[in-house]
Amino acid sequence: MELSLEEIARLVDGRVVGDEGLMITGVNNLAGAGPGEISFFAGRRYRDAFRKTKASAVFVQNEEPALEAVQVVVPNPELAYAKTANLFASPVPRYPGVSKDAIIHDSSEIGENVSVYPGVYIGEEAVIGDGVILFPGVFVGDRVRIGKETLIYPNVTVLHECLIGARVIIHAGCVIGSDGFGYVRDGSTSVKIPQTGIVQIDDHVEIGANSCIDRAAFGKTWIKRGAKLDNLVQIAHNVVIGEGSIIVAQVGISGSVNIGRGVLMGGQVGIADHLEIGDGAMIAPQAGVAKSILPGGVVSGTPAIPHRLYLKAVSLMSRLPQLNARLRNLEKRMEEKEK
Amino acid sequence: MELSLEEIARLVDGRVVGDEGLMITGVNNLAGAGPGEISFFAGRRYRDAFRKTKASAVFVQNEEPALEAVQVVVPNPELAYAKTANLFASPVPRYPGVSKDAIIHDSSEIGENVSVYPGVYIGEEAVIGDGVILFPGVFVGDRVRIGKETLIYPNVTVLHECLIGARVIIHAGCVIGSDGFGYVRDGSTSVKIPQTGIVQIDDHVEIGANSCIDRAAFGKTWIKRGAKLDNLVQIAHNVVIGEGSIIVAQVGISGSVNIGRGVLMGGQVGIADHLEIGDGAMIAPQAGVAKSILPGGVVSGTPAIPHRLYLKAVSLMSRLPQLNARLRNLEKRMEEKEK
Amino acid sequence: MELSLEEIARLVDGRVVGDEGLMITGVNNLAGAGPGEISFFAGRRYRDAFRKTKASAVFVQNEEPALEAVQVVVPNPELAYAKTANLFASPVPRYPGVSKDAIIHDSSEIGENVSVYPGVYIGEEAVIGDGVILFPGVFVGDRVRIGKETLIYPNVTVLHECLIGARVIIHAGCVIGSDGFGYVRDGSTSVKIPQTGIVQIDDHVEIGANSCIDRAAFGKTWIKRGAKLDNLVQIAHNVVIGEGSIIVAQVGISGSVNIGRGVLMGGQVGIADHLEIGDGAMIAPQAGVAKSILPGGVVSGTPAIPHRLYLKAVSLMSRLPQLNARLRNLEKRMEEKEK
Repeated sequence: MELSLEEIARLVDGRVVGDEGLMITGVNNLAGAGPGEISFFAGRRYRDAFRKTKASAVFVQNEEPALEAVQVVVPNPELAYAKTANLFASPVPRYPGVSKDAIIHDSSEIGENVSVYPGVYIGEEAVIGDGVILFPGVFVGDRVRIGKETLIYPNVTVLHECLIGARVIIHAGCVIGSDGFGYVRDGSTSVKIPQTGIVQIDDHVEIGANSCIDRAAFGKTWIKRGAKLDNLVQIAHNVVIGEGSIIVAQVGISGSVNIGRGVLMGGQVGIADHLEIGDGAMIAPQAGVAKSILPGGVVSGTPAIPHRLYLKAVSLMSRLPQLNARLRNLEKRMEEKEK
Repeated sequence: MELSLEEIARLVDGRVVGDEGLMITGVNNLAGAGPGEISFFAGRRYRDAFRKTKASAVFVQNEEPALEAVQVVVPNPELAYAKTANLFASPVPRYPGVSKDAIIHDSSEIGENVSVYPGVYIGEEAVIGDGVILFPGVFVGDRVRIGKETLIYPNVTVLHECLIGARVIIHAGCVIGSDGFGYVRDGSTSVKIPQTGIVQIDDHVEIGANSCIDRAAFGKTWIKRGAKLDNLVQIAHNVVIGEGSIIVAQVGISGSVNIGRGVLMGGQVGIADHLEIGDGAMIAPQAGVAKSILPGGVVSGTPAIPHRLYLKAVSLMSRLPQLNARLRNLEKRMEEKEK
Repeated sequence: MELSLEEIARLVDGRVVGDEGLMITGVNNLAGAGPGEISFFAGRRYRDAFRKTKASAVFVQNEEPALEAVQVVVPNPELAYAKTANLFASPVPRYPGVSKDAIIHDSSEIGENVSVYPGVYIGEEAVIGDGVILFPGVFVGDRVRIGKETLIYPNVTVLHECLIGARVIIHAGCVIGSDGFGYVRDGSTSVKIPQTGIVQIDDHVEIGANSCIDRAAFGKTWIKRGAKLDNLVQIAHNVVIGEGSIIVAQVGISGSVNIGRGVLMGGQVGIADHLEIGDGAMIAPQAGVAKSILPGGVVSGTPAIPHRLYLKAVSLMSRLPQLNARLRNLEKRMEEKEK
């Protein structure tokens, strides 16, 4: 595939500084790019690579006089890059049609242009939308519904009744719809509370490898439109994750937590049950959140506190030995005085 | 299915306030329940939902005069609910018999009334008890034994020689019997220590999705009767987990840790190797346990300390900037005095 | 299998104190060993078991006069044990040849003496080296190359283009080559950055169950020779892990982190993106690393600080209530003085 710089500039709303007719055959980072490729300059960390790049063209935020390559000036070079890269990306390999080595219940409905690899299982009355790709080892439980053009990688388990939207990507090894972790103590034994709800995943959600999303005790666990979850994330029963929220790897979210829109959580964060995390909140990696967070709140640490306070407290943490020494020194001087 | 309130009350040892003959067709939470359904009032957090519920009957701890619904007074409404819900729960979908699309070694023994989905693998001399359900993608290694009525969800791996009890539930994607993580350094290389033991899982254990339980270096890694593990939990070689213990998601337990009965661990806890965790100990979420814990101990933090001390220390943590300011103020005043 | 102590001593460069002709039939730990077995004494923690062992022979570092068993004196008893245990270890069960119930693309190349279980999928132009074992549920993507004698346990997913070396062990449920977690914000939506790179795993690497290694955005995510990863580890895009490094369970490493040789990370460690972790660095369990670490650095805590400083700060942490009391006391005395 080839696109002229002019075509690319139009797509990303950019201004070409140099030869608009230049043909571009692919994308790459600054260090790896060669002739015919377009790259992007994402900021100072990459200044060296920027100077040395062999890319034919580079997305930049500000015109850079020294550069030999043709420049495409855009407000956000990384975004321009991402959009262009999606044009050049090789499509996900598709099994041609529905494999005879898949097990598909007669009562299920399979859409058009669906790719079902060998070793897939599709249960009773499941509905598979047009253009869906199901890789080997995918289990689709009874009455599951999968929206169109959704992509499910190998060895994913989607249990009965769960609803998956359109253009969702579920990476390998995920488990959607496992029982929530609910018991009631009866003396020394634990009586299981049946988990009667489902998981609903809305359009454009992406879920990382080996992540787990438990079905609700009642109603639904709900991942809303455009939310992105990284690998090995744990979502407990009845959690709601708002639109466009970003959850980095190994985060664990306890039952019935309600997360707003556009929330950002760093890796390995843990959230206690029944909390409200407001729209646009940001939670630093490894934080342990024990209280609800207001919209726009920024927190760090375990237990999580406002990020600014955390920075001060943490810097003093490692100065505790000095604090202790100063305190001892004062005590001595006081004794001296009191004599 | 329908049960009269009288029948339900008998089962849960409750007292009906209202029409005992009322027929109940299902269970639900207060907010979701409608006519014919029974719900439960689990405490103040649900007071609003309690007032507005459309449930026909509600389990309560104390008779509530204002409520329109029939009440069933029980010592523990949530427990009464769980027991009732189990009566109404829809059974796990069963493949009718043993699929011809499963691979089953001739030397294995398959019990009666077993459900083996397509895509299951059962190795040499494995023994599958009566009433077991094995979902697609389950791997049962050579000489594995699975007790009766155990339920194993899709894509679970149970490696050779491991022993699984009766009425165990293993959620999707779990790995039982992977090698323990054991090496000896030989200069700059790591020599693998063969892991010759097994995993033994006793009756009534439940293990969450994508959890991993490593086989012992020698002898066995042992999950005792009635223990409940959540998703993405890591159990290293030679760990013992006592009866009825509860391990929340993403906990990691290092090698040879010995955990007593009825221990409760919050999510993302980590336990260092070779420790003893006494009966009934409670470990707060994200704690990092570096020392053994006495029976009944309650700890928090990293490194974990007694919970009361932790609460004090943590509240001072975020007041460190003030402490520092007070200290500086004193220093100045002292200098003043010393002049 | 039987080996004389003389043969064993030669293998591990040991000196036999007692009957060199004694025939050994297996290995075990001190507590479990019986006649015919050899064990090892790994230090004081095992003194009791050492005195009571019924092993016929024991690897020791220093000759122990009181012991009845024959002794083999070696510099490192655990290493001698590991080497001997590998001789006696039962081989991994191999499917005899390539199962007709595996799905193998015609364009792939399968080496000699390969064991492919039923339920394996091998994609287009994949290359499988001699002696490889692929368990049921393994997915091998298009153009994946697997080196000789590599062992891949059930339900592992290796996605397109990834390169796996020789004598690698990948435990059950791992995902190799899932997309890195990369998006660019465009207003309230997240535009996916295509992940065009691969994962390369070099010879003698071992990867624990349900771990995830993401493919690079560009170029490769690279696990170098002899590195050992435990279960449920998360490796983000473009990470490099140096030779012989050891990564314990549930560690999460963010994008583009460069880890040197012989690094040791405890369980549940988190590393922020784009950091350099120097050769031989040691990172304590649950640490949160926010800055690069020099070669040989030893760090603990969140945010991670030098281990010695951490020990001091942490011990003062739990004494904060006393510090506060001392401060208050001083303040009173000062007021007294100032009156």
